[in-house]
Amino acid sequence: MIAILIGPEYEDLEVWYPKYRLEAAGYPAPLVGVSGQTFKGKHGYPAPVELSLDQVNPAELAGVLAPGGWAPDKLRRDPAILNLIREVDGRGGLVGTICHGPWILISAGILRGRRLTSTVGIRDDVMNAGATWVDAPVVTDGNLVSSRVPKDLPAFGEALVDWLGRHR
Amino acid sequence: MIAILIGPEYEDLEVWYPKYRLEAAGYPAPLVGVSGQTFKGKHGYPAPVELSLDQVNPAELAGVLAPGGWAPDKLRRDPAILNLIREVDGRGGLVGTICHGPWILISAGILRGRRLTSTVGIRDDVMNAGATWVDAPVVTDGNLVSSRVPKDLPAFGEALVDWLGRHR
Repeated sequence: MIAILIGPEYEDLEVWYPKYRLEAAGYPAPLVGVSGQTFKGKHGYPAPVELSLDQVNPAELAGVLAPGGWAPDKLRRDPAILNLIREVDGRGGLVGTICHGPWILISAGILRGRRLTSTVGIRDDVMNAGATWVDAPVVTDGNLVSSRVPKDLPAFGEALVDWLGRHR
Repeated sequence: MIAILIGPEYEDLEVWYPKYRLEAAGYPAPLVGVSGQTFKGKHGYPAPVELSLDQVNPAELAGVLAPGGWAPDKLRRDPAILNLIREVDGRGGLVGTICHGPWILISAGILRGRRLTSTVGIRDDVMNAGATWVDAPVVTDGNLVSSRVPKDLPAFGEALVDWLGRHR
């Protein structure tokens, strides 16, 4: 199971495209939020929380996705979210992120020495967290898979599925 | 190239998920509309017309997708859209549709004797057009691939890619 983190004003396609692409490849990918509500995307697409955070056992996750939009600005403030990220990353599970999603990874303190991409808007934050920022549609560095913007989603989806196929 | 038909109040994910899934598999899938504007999805996601209808040569299309939302109610009134559908279907190119998309295929007059699915909301219209309606996440009948609703998109995407792989 891959947990996809959602919150208020999530980026609509950055949540739904990877969710459906992972499900198409046979990996359950529930939308995980702090409470059981329905969030609206930045553009308005409704996303029901399918699992609330307290229902998720990080030890049972094959990976976690931190998509973009404005949701990461809220999610990075929640210690339980940051613990989940650290636990999955600590044992080498898949950590996928796109656009503004790396804000959460910065606050989880897991980016030092890593290579990744993001929206150019947070490039400075990513570099100040000790990471190397790369301008490419998708960057895979160990268990960390990252992309820049929605138009990179086709490449992002294939990289996630590829990583999971190599780490069954 | 697979033309994805868009118009006002298109269903956001039914356009963007197949577009990105097809592109991930190596098939260009431009958003095609009657004019060069940007349409808003039913939920608000903006979609720029990437090719206007008069720039598309139906003879060069490997297929056409008719997604749902309210856009089909407008698109089915345009003779040029219906001609495009008939031309692609007539030579056995891929015709994909989901949700309310079959409204366009009904007006193109191509459904008699075919098997397909759709949103249950237009089941009667589909049957009255002479087709057999099936309740399944995805139905492939020759060159016609159909699904019901957004949650069927993972299966829909794989069926489209699978069909194209078998008809290179």
